[in-house]
Amino acid sequence: MSVYLRDIPLAEAKERFHQAIRDAGRWRLLGIEAIPLDENAVGRILAEPVWARISSPHYHASAMDGFAVRSEDTATAMPTSPVTLSMGDQASYVDTGDAIPAWADAVVPIELVEPLDENGQLNQENRRPAKIRLRASLAPWSHIRPMGEDIITGQLVLPAGQMLRPVDLGAMAACGFNQAQVSRQPRVGIIPTGSELVPPGSDAKPGEIIEYNSIVLAAQVKNWGGIPRRYPITPDNLALILERVRQAAEESDLILLNAGSSAGSEDFSATVVSKLGDLLVHGVAVRPGHPVILGLVFRENGDKIPIIGVPGFPVSAALTGEIFVEPLLAEWLGRSAFAAQVITARLTRKVTSPPGDEDYMRVVVGKVGDDLLAAPLPRAAGTITSLVRADGITILPAGIQGLEAGSLIKVRLYTSLREPERTIFVIGSHDMTLDILAQFISARGRRLVSSNVGSLGGLAALRRNEAHLAGSHLLDPQSGEYNISYLRQYLPGIPVRLVTWANREQGLMVKKGNPKGIQSLADLARPEVMYVNRQRGAGTRVLLDFHLQKLNIPTDRIHGYSQEEFTHLAVAAAIASGRADTGLGIPAAASALNLDFIPLYLERYDLVIPTHFLEGDLLTPMFDLMDDPAFRKAVASMPGYDITHMGEVVPIPA
Amino acid sequence: MSVYLRDIPLAEAKERFHQAIRDAGRWRLLGIEAIPLDENAVGRILAEPVWARISSPHYHASAMDGFAVRSEDTATAMPTSPVTLSMGDQASYVDTGDAIPAWADAVVPIELVEPLDENGQLNQENRRPAKIRLRASLAPWSHIRPMGEDIITGQLVLPAGQMLRPVDLGAMAACGFNQAQVSRQPRVGIIPTGSELVPPGSDAKPGEIIEYNSIVLAAQVKNWGGIPRRYPITPDNLALILERVRQAAEESDLILLNAGSSAGSEDFSATVVSKLGDLLVHGVAVRPGHPVILGLVFRENGDKIPIIGVPGFPVSAALTGEIFVEPLLAEWLGRSAFAAQVITARLTRKVTSPPGDEDYMRVVVGKVGDDLLAAPLPRAAGTITSLVRADGITILPAGIQGLEAGSLIKVRLYTSLREPERTIFVIGSHDMTLDILAQFISARGRRLVSSNVGSLGGLAALRRNEAHLAGSHLLDPQSGEYNISYLRQYLPGIPVRLVTWANREQGLMVKKGNPKGIQSLADLARPEVMYVNRQRGAGTRVLLDFHLQKLNIPTDRIHGYSQEEFTHLAVAAAIASGRADTGLGIPAAASALNLDFIPLYLERYDLVIPTHFLEGDLLTPMFDLMDDPAFRKAVASMPGYDITHMGEVVPIPA
Repeated sequence: MSVYLRDIPLAEAKERFHQAIRDAGRWRLLGIEAIPLDENAVGRILAEPVWARISSPHYHASAMDGFAVRSEDTATAMPTSPVTLSMGDQASYVDTGDAIPAWADAVVPIELVEPLDENGQLNQENRRPAKIRLRASLAPWSHIRPMGEDIITGQLVLPAGQMLRPVDLGAMAACGFNQAQVSRQPRVGIIPTGSELVPPGSDAKPGEIIEYNSIVLAAQVKNWGGIPRRYPITPDNLALILERVRQAAEESDLILLNAGSSAGSEDFSATVVSKLGDLLVHGVAVRPGHPVILGLVFRENGDKIPIIGVPGFPVSAALTGEIFVEPLLAEWLGRSAFAAQVITARLTRKVTSPPGDEDYMRVVVGKVGDDLLAAPLPRAAGTITSLVRADGITILPAGIQGLEAGSLIKVRLYTSLREPERTIFVIGSHDMTLDILAQFISARGRRLVSSNVGSLGGLAALRRNEAHLAGSHLLDPQSGEYNISYLRQYLPGIPVRLVTWANREQGLMVKKGNPKGIQSLADLARPEVMYVNRQRGAGTRVLLDFHLQKLNIPTDRIHGYSQEEFTHLAVAAAIASGRADTGLGIPAAASALNLDFIPLYLERYDLVIPTHFLEGDLLTPMFDLMDDPAFRKAVASMPGYDITHMGEVVPIPA
Repeated sequence: MSVYLRDIPLAEAKERFHQAIRDAGRWRLLGIEAIPLDENAVGRILAEPVWARISSPHYHASAMDGFAVRSEDTATAMPTSPVTLSMGDQASYVDTGDAIPAWADAVVPIELVEPLDENGQLNQENRRPAKIRLRASLAPWSHIRPMGEDIITGQLVLPAGQMLRPVDLGAMAACGFNQAQVSRQPRVGIIPTGSELVPPGSDAKPGEIIEYNSIVLAAQVKNWGGIPRRYPITPDNLALILERVRQAAEESDLILLNAGSSAGSEDFSATVVSKLGDLLVHGVAVRPGHPVILGLVFRENGDKIPIIGVPGFPVSAALTGEIFVEPLLAEWLGRSAFAAQVITARLTRKVTSPPGDEDYMRVVVGKVGDDLLAAPLPRAAGTITSLVRADGITILPAGIQGLEAGSLIKVRLYTSLREPERTIFVIGSHDMTLDILAQFISARGRRLVSSNVGSLGGLAALRRNEAHLAGSHLLDPQSGEYNISYLRQYLPGIPVRLVTWANREQGLMVKKGNPKGIQSLADLARPEVMYVNRQRGAGTRVLLDFHLQKLNIPTDRIHGYSQEEFTHLAVAAAIASGRADTGLGIPAAASALNLDFIPLYLERYDLVIPTHFLEGDLLTPMFDLMDDPAFRKAVASMPGYDITHMGEVVPIPA
């Protein structure tokens, strides 16, 4: 029977799984097949080394258009005493690539001979002369590509395990092959289960979950060289799941049984594996992804097929693919498992970690000045966008409780290091037109990565050299001016350029039809009104507090004042979902979530850019866009934006 | 008519080509198509940005298996004074992912409640209790994934131009899509021309050339996102080529017309382009690849289709793909052109360069100690293996004549930096069993890159820290011992370990049947015998000179003594092809080229390893292999090898 374990260490789980596959006789190539040497061979893995069958060139070939000659016949040729050779027995015309006659041992390029006719008359246009005259001698083997210059029969051209690239196909053809012996591609059956699942594009109701783990897993399998097969969604019915797994076992080399997200659903998977074979591991000390199940199920003929119970949360599912599926496919295909490039980067903020688990933290990597920075992404297993945005993974080992900001960490890159180098880190206040900037600038060779930490947080990040620029809309209650006094206070001694992005409306977002009749900040103190706030340090929070003070409304009279969100959209979403009645924010956010908007203030949103980042060309496309009519139009079409002053430099008094 | 130019600078050629395509109205996406969101969407390019249609989650979802409650109902719960809630109006069971009832605002995880039956009796096994008892209060929104936690309606999820990855498909499905709007894939027609061409796998005769450029180009096009179509080989017949190009123009977005290698064949291509459209560029100042042709040909309906006349030599053809085809496909697909990671490395030897051209030099990159080294590969346009072996390209700009050894150069990597880090640089004497080592070690996560510079050259390279180990078989005429006295002389003060690789036979390779009746070194002085030698510093050359001296045979009596090759196989190839009658070498090389072998000497071939490279685990797999029965058997099966002492450390007297 099976061994039932909870949350064993990752290395131990893998070893147990691999050993069971070894014992089942399946830790090896699944098969070898001959495929034609054409573009479809790219990406396949050589199952055998390629030893050259023939040399390349396979004969002595002329390297130039010219005449094959005997070098000894040219030995006395000098500028003042030429040598004349007759066509036929002393010289023979050859094109580049032609075989050299057996009697010849050199080629004289056509531009170095004087072509003569029968009578010895020179005619430079004569391409089929009767004789040729030379005024320099030739060393033996001049302008000849000797047989085997590139490849010699018997030489190792490509090792087994090579993933075939276009030039590899060329080299194989050159040394005598028209087929490649490659490993058979593993078939991977992917079974999504869960009564709550609906297919993508459905008009999903509350409680229904859009099933896309099977798409992500299938795409991963394809990328890694396997052949995925997605089975239809199977509801939470033990008999149906058993039947589906039995079927998949006959048709697959590996089964990925994707549980729903609930603990009950995982237990289903464990039961299925136990009933149909051996449950080896239930729970691995890794986050996200710890409820993973590893086992073997038996075919009717007794063959044992590995099965992985994949957790339901999307980040867990994708990481289970990377951690457990990819190495197995690598083994079956006969290639090395993928090994990411590892870099060292500086963590931009403090993180905590559950001490018992290896914690796979997704990070964005950017280069700010000479520093490589790693900014942690949302940690929850439900945030698929954390993988979309990730440049890499940092593994916080079991046993540590977290890391301080500024720690140097190792990051396994998903991307090449080019990506951080073309990345603009924007930090600070959230503005929805930054999404438009991100879209436009990606067509100009840059990537915009923005973190929403509020205006003050952005200035603090600039001081720590953690971003290229910060968005800020901090109102100075004394002067009524934006940002300038804050620069003095938070960025002393750091020369910056202040550039206006846009003037934008701020106001109260309310549910469609404004059911609670909210009109001004005074309504926030009404007991039946639930407010949703922005975080401390956000410009919008500063604006709110400024006006509440002017109106003499104490913040403890506002229900929900302590309920904080980090973006305008998150505030809007809280209102749209009924968690709150109103929040201060921008009209574009209200519009995106189909809310009503009560305009109250007009404010200036600026970009704060340390001047040394203006030196390279990283930010050039951003400044170009501020003058680009299509981009300006796209921003201006968002509700509540006035871009008249976009791109203007705000003078900073000394 | 057309502009006819020779060898204009690369940037100018590209700009002229791109401008003509712009003028023809084809510098844009070729089309947009909707494809299903499944594994086949991976690698396709988004033609439009993805703005979220729905939030994810699209409702307030429980993050745990437990009970949805009102947080205010739990406010007074304490360890000593629990709160009891009734199922139905105060508590409701929820699985992870379930929607939260409208009246609830928190979830208490199942493991934190005391389940009670109707009578208030505690039963921990009761999963459907009538009441639950809590001993701690809950903050609002505890254990709830609020609507929009991951993605909020209206948010930019992916920019246009994104190459879709598995997780991107998941994110698109999560925010409401079941299709992706992607750019249409460009169709690229590839036409190989040349009467000398034969298909791969043919029994090619001298002068026949195996046609594989079309395979390499098609595979490149596929890798870069296009749809290649390979047309059959067209012989050098203007009418046939014209007809084929006309056909391809109707069926393709881009035509690659691959000329034969001769100048005459290139002229054919230029004529075809001139006759069917506009010849824009003929000759670009780049090596290899300078005879490239750029133009437009006209469809019957007047549309202008770009055409590239691709040079015939394989390296030229592949680089033409990288330089001209890839950026064009990128533009048509709406993605960024590939930008390689660029590293700085130290050049291992002096190189020269034609001053008028940009020179694309292929290099192998390895990490020796802390140094990144770039070793130049063969420069000839005919050496496809130089691309197979390349880790990257260095561009020697027009205007420079060459670079000294030790120069720091920029290398555009084809691979990730992982590759150099797992690379073992072997230098020195050529031995064919190193190919077997390369094959076996690639299955153990290492890559073996060997340079054949002779035994002495290998020791010199170790002194310059340019390799991890050197193969050496240098006989000391005084002592009759191998290698030790040379270590003292060439590596003074550098601690090394000397490890025996094998004892091997050396002897004379001769043509099958030994037509000239060669029996010993004395025969080399016969006037009708042509010898082929190894280069100065090769152990085999040292061996030859030692025995010639003993026999009192002056080297100037040996025909071909100055004809030098760098490997045993190259010597064997020279004999097999008739360039020479005999050469000193190893039986495995004779056997590979089907030569006869006259054994003369037994010598010891050692590995010289600076001891500091023994510290890391880079070389561990090599030492493991020396003890591996399968590997030892493979080496021992090569003719002329005795591996009894393989792996033994040779003591070096102080």
